[in-house]
Amino acid sequence: MSPADVVVALDVGGTGMKCALVGPNGGTVRAERHPTDAGRGPDAVVDAILDIAEGLAGKARADGFEPVALGVAVPGVVNEAAGVAVWSANVGFRDVPLRDLAVARLGLPTALGHDVRAGGLAEARLGAGRGTGHVLFVAIGTGIAAAHVVDGSAATGAHGAAGEIGHILVRPGGPRCGCGRRGCLEAVASASAIARRYAELAGVTATAAEVADRAAGGEPAAARVWAEAVEALADGLATGQSLFDVETVVVGGGLAQAGPLLFDPLRAALHERMTFHREPRLVAAALGDEAGCLGAALLALDNLEK
Amino acid sequence: MSPADVVVALDVGGTGMKCALVGPNGGTVRAERHPTDAGRGPDAVVDAILDIAEGLAGKARADGFEPVALGVAVPGVVNEAAGVAVWSANVGFRDVPLRDLAVARLGLPTALGHDVRAGGLAEARLGAGRGTGHVLFVAIGTGIAAAHVVDGSAATGAHGAAGEIGHILVRPGGPRCGCGRRGCLEAVASASAIARRYAELAGVTATAAEVADRAAGGEPAAARVWAEAVEALADGLATGQSLFDVETVVVGGGLAQAGPLLFDPLRAALHERMTFHREPRLVAAALGDEAGCLGAALLALDNLEK
Repeated sequence: MSPADVVVALDVGGTGMKCALVGPNGGTVRAERHPTDAGRGPDAVVDAILDIAEGLAGKARADGFEPVALGVAVPGVVNEAAGVAVWSANVGFRDVPLRDLAVARLGLPTALGHDVRAGGLAEARLGAGRGTGHVLFVAIGTGIAAAHVVDGSAATGAHGAAGEIGHILVRPGGPRCGCGRRGCLEAVASASAIARRYAELAGVTATAAEVADRAAGGEPAAARVWAEAVEALADGLATGQSLFDVETVVVGGGLAQAGPLLFDPLRAALHERMTFHREPRLVAAALGDEAGCLGAALLALDNLEK
Repeated sequence: MSPADVVVALDVGGTGMKCALVGPNGGTVRAERHPTDAGRGPDAVVDAILDIAEGLAGKARADGFEPVALGVAVPGVVNEAAGVAVWSANVGFRDVPLRDLAVARLGLPTALGHDVRAGGLAEARLGAGRGTGHVLFVAIGTGIAAAHVVDGSAATGAHGAAGEIGHILVRPGGPRCGCGRRGCLEAVASASAIARRYAELAGVTATAAEVADRAAGGEPAAARVWAEAVEALADGLATGQSLFDVETVVVGGGLAQAGPLLFDPLRAALHERMTFHREPRLVAAALGDEAGCLGAALLALDNLEK
């Protein structure tokens, strides 16, 4: 690739899209954000994705860059090999052949990826997991999902659904999860589960970040909810380590913003659970909410090299 | 490779070693079994391994075959890349550079592998998982361990400790596990855990296979212990499917001998737990206790190709 080459990268989320032009070494030369506006339906979202991608390619050319590839990351179940957005709860995709649609519109080699796997890829190669071969990236926000990245590539699973750490059982008979089961990690330790549980116990509403602050301030209900979430997360990460045996666990997503209020007790609780295991390094994500977009760019670059 | 080429393969277990000469297409031309006699200490076991391997290579030549490589599978924590048996509870290995020792003695290119990962490799490529790209092999015996095999190669983890599905949490506060924690899958659903729990409840001793039979015959204590174990196994497999998203789960080890008494209720319980997941095919292992030895042969062949 020439230094003037760029890839067009989009990370499509439930509420917003992070979009960028990224150079061959991972440097961002232009960044944009657009609303997803999922309420207008999946067809309109697909049109918006293609419009934005085409617009960015045009801006790249206007600035003297050459757009050489496109990478798009989307949530839900994604068949990377086929380039199909199989299913998404929050955007409404059902078997959308997004890669072929993009190729038809832009004429650029296109890679389709999964948002959390793309984020994990970026954290493993450019962010907090840089320099380590085996990384588990865990994104904790409204939901909880993970990406297992080995030697710079994220495991997709047989049907594009690998890494659903939010739906491993940690509390049998526990709170009902969105997936229909009880006691999933996501139902106990996601930001929304923490807020819900706190409202139940304290009778007032607060965000997970506020619960973390109140717990640090010694408020009993907040301290209890926060401790329960940290213990459940530690159980989930210990299960992940038992199965994956990674060097580094990178925790990102909204809950990671709690910083030491999360990482100090979580590191201690994980340490307690490591018996025969090699203890992984537990670190905060470094790329913030740009990880998915950078990961989409990496997928586009990897796809070019193939 | 010529049709007269064979690899020497050994699967070293806590009580016995399965040994074979295996042709390029996976066919066994000679099989032997030897006691491990772990009580004599790890140095003596290493000597025995090398003696047996050398003996088999000699027998191959005497029969007109050409031994071209050696594959050895051992239990515990194994660093495949370095060829080191890092740690083993039942054989006593502590950082044994088994691959280099074997190369020095036999002069053959040697691959060292992990017993369950080797077994998984064989089941995925030659056995019950044949023809599917994403396989989770779970061996249930005295302990419980797994191998995640994608495109014919088993994930090792960063430190050779991947696949420890026996030590994922399924019953918080449950029975104490050998690893020191409570409620690990192995502490509830291994053959030894089943026998232990039955002895507690019924006041008489029985093997896990006998518990399965008595449960089928309607004995309440046996039925309860068996059902508890099946439910815990289904929880463990559902967690595995959430993280790995495989096409096929192959269950082997002693407990798989229970046949439909295990697989019928386990399949139903796993089905119940699959909400958003693609449901994997759940099948019994096909290679019996020769899987590890065949897997060691495959490792030797793969190593030759590299």
